[in-house]
Amino acid sequence: MREFEFIDWIRSQSRFDPAVVRVGPGDDAAVVAWAGRRVLVTVDQALDGVHFELARHGPQQAGRKAMARSLSDVAAMAGRPWAAVASVALPQGAGADLAQNLYMGLRKLADEFACPLVGGDVGAWTGPLAISVTVLAVPDGVEPVLRGGAKPGDAICVSGALGGAWRGLRHLSFMPRVHEARILAGRYGLHAMIDLSDGLASDLRHVCRASGVGARISAAAVPISPDVDCQNPPERLRRALCDGEDYELLFALPMEQARDLVRRQPLGVQVSLIGQCTDQQDVVLAHDDGRVEPLPAGGYEHTTQAR
Amino acid sequence: MREFEFIDWIRSQSRFDPAVVRVGPGDDAAVVAWAGRRVLVTVDQALDGVHFELARHGPQQAGRKAMARSLSDVAAMAGRPWAAVASVALPQGAGADLAQNLYMGLRKLADEFACPLVGGDVGAWTGPLAISVTVLAVPDGVEPVLRGGAKPGDAICVSGALGGAWRGLRHLSFMPRVHEARILAGRYGLHAMIDLSDGLASDLRHVCRASGVGARISAAAVPISPDVDCQNPPERLRRALCDGEDYELLFALPMEQARDLVRRQPLGVQVSLIGQCTDQQDVVLAHDDGRVEPLPAGGYEHTTQAR
Repeated sequence: MREFEFIDWIRSQSRFDPAVVRVGPGDDAAVVAWAGRRVLVTVDQALDGVHFELARHGPQQAGRKAMARSLSDVAAMAGRPWAAVASVALPQGAGADLAQNLYMGLRKLADEFACPLVGGDVGAWTGPLAISVTVLAVPDGVEPVLRGGAKPGDAICVSGALGGAWRGLRHLSFMPRVHEARILAGRYGLHAMIDLSDGLASDLRHVCRASGVGARISAAAVPISPDVDCQNPPERLRRALCDGEDYELLFALPMEQARDLVRRQPLGVQVSLIGQCTDQQDVVLAHDDGRVEPLPAGGYEHTTQAR
Repeated sequence: MREFEFIDWIRSQSRFDPAVVRVGPGDDAAVVAWAGRRVLVTVDQALDGVHFELARHGPQQAGRKAMARSLSDVAAMAGRPWAAVASVALPQGAGADLAQNLYMGLRKLADEFACPLVGGDVGAWTGPLAISVTVLAVPDGVEPVLRGGAKPGDAICVSGALGGAWRGLRHLSFMPRVHEARILAGRYGLHAMIDLSDGLASDLRHVCRASGVGARISAAAVPISPDVDCQNPPERLRRALCDGEDYELLFALPMEQARDLVRRQPLGVQVSLIGQCTDQQDVVLAHDDGRVEPLPAGGYEHTTQAR
C-alpha cells in the first residue's frame, strides 16, 4: 500500500467533530480548534538509512533535518511556529555525545524559527536512530493554506530550484520556507500550497487530487538546481521533477497575481511560474517543441522505498 | 547518561520566554500559551522490543499502548485530551494489514477519550516498528498539576495496585487515568502528580527531586497487584515498587484531604495513602517492625536498559 492510499483509507475511517477538527489527516498539518482558537499540528520522522545516514552525516545534521522537515510542513500551511516536541529512539550503546549533538541540531534550527523545543521522549533500543518531531503552529493573522483549493486556470509556482538535493546535501541544509510562506499567504491569494518533500511530480499530484484539478507544467520553466550534475537535458528535468527532498514551496494562485509575484520577486529566493491548473484529470508536461506527455510518475514514496 | 540526567542537561540548555512556555522539559507534559490560552503537549514512544513485542502482542496492541502512554502523561497533568498525531516507522515489507491494525489500535483508544487522531506520518525502513504519539490537551477548568509542588507533610497517594504489569499484560491493557486525574484535581488540592511508568521507586524520586522534598513510604500500605505472582513478601514489595509500567497516578496533597479522599474513594479505582513527604533529602521505606531502609533504587530506566 502506498502512503497516499493509506492516508485515503485513514480518511475513510475518520469521523470528526468539525468544530474541533478543522483540517484532518492528509494535509501538511492538521488544524484543531478550542474555544475559538486554532492550532496547527504536524509530525514528521527522520529515520537513519532513509532520511539521513547517521554514520555519514552525524547526529547534529540528523537532528537538524528532523526539525526542518516538520517546520517545512508548517511552512506549507503558512503557519507561524509556536512550539515543538521531539521523540528519539537511540541505538543501544549510543553515548551522551550522540544524544547531546542530536539535541543541539534540533534546538539550533528551532531557535532560528523562534519555536521553543518544550519537551520530548528519549529511549534506547536495538534499532537504528529514529527521530520524530511534532511542531505546533498558530495562524497569527494568516489563514492556513490547504492542498485542496486550487482552481482551473490558477498559476502553479515554485520557490527555489529543484533536483539533486542529496548530492548537494541540500536535503540536510535546507531552510524551511516558513517566512517565505507567510509573505506569500499574507500578500497573495494563495489557493493551495504544499512543500516539496517527495518531488514535484509526486507532490503536484497530491495538490491536484485534493483540489480536483489537472495540471499542465511547462518543461522549460522548471527551475533546475545546480546540484543536478548530469548534462542530458531530459534526465536533468526528470531529476528536478522526481528526486525529491527539495523542501521548496509549490503553490497555486490566480494567474494575474502570479505574474505580479514573479515580477516583484519579494522572497529573496526565486519564484518561478511553471504551469497552470486545468479542468482535466491528468497532470502533463508540455515541451517547447509542442510535445505533451504525462508528468513522470516518479518521486519519493515513503512506504514503498527506502533511500 | 541516564534519562533524568539528560533531561537535566536539556533544562540547563533551555532559555524560554515564560509568556509562551509555562512548563518546559522535565514534567509529564509541557504547557505552552498563545493569546492567553494554554495548551498541554506531550510525546511518548512505543518501540518494538522495549515497550511491546510485535511478534507476540501484534500491531493493534502496540498501537493501543502507544496512545495509552501519551494519554497517561496527559492524565498526570490532569489535562483534558484535545487531539493526537502519530508517527510510525514500519519494518520494510510490512503489509497493509499491519499498518491498518496498528492504526485501529491507536484510534480505538483515542476515541474512548474523545481525542481525535488528526494526523501523522508513516514511513518504511530497515529498523523495527517504532511509534511516536503526541497528544495535545487543554486545562478546561482544571489547573495543570506539576511534579514540583509537593510539600513536607503532604500525604502521598497512589491509584490502583502495583507490580507485575508485564506478567499480567496490564502494560498493554491499562486505561490511562485521565478521568480519575480530572476528578482528583478538580475536587482536591493536589500539589504534585506523576504517572507511574518507570515504577513507584523511580517515579516518586522524580517528584521528590522536582519538589525538593524527601518521602517516607509505609511498606505495609503499598498496594500490590494480583499480577505479582511470587510468595516471598520482600520480593513482592520490591516488584510493586520497581517493576514499572503500572500507569497509575502517584500524587501528593494535604494530609487532611488525603484522609477524606481515601474514606470517600470517589474514583472507581482504589486510592491508597502510602506515605508522607518529609523535609529530609532521602526517600525511605518504613516497615511495620520499625526498620527504615532506603527505597530500592530500581525502576525502569529508559536510556540504560531495554526490557
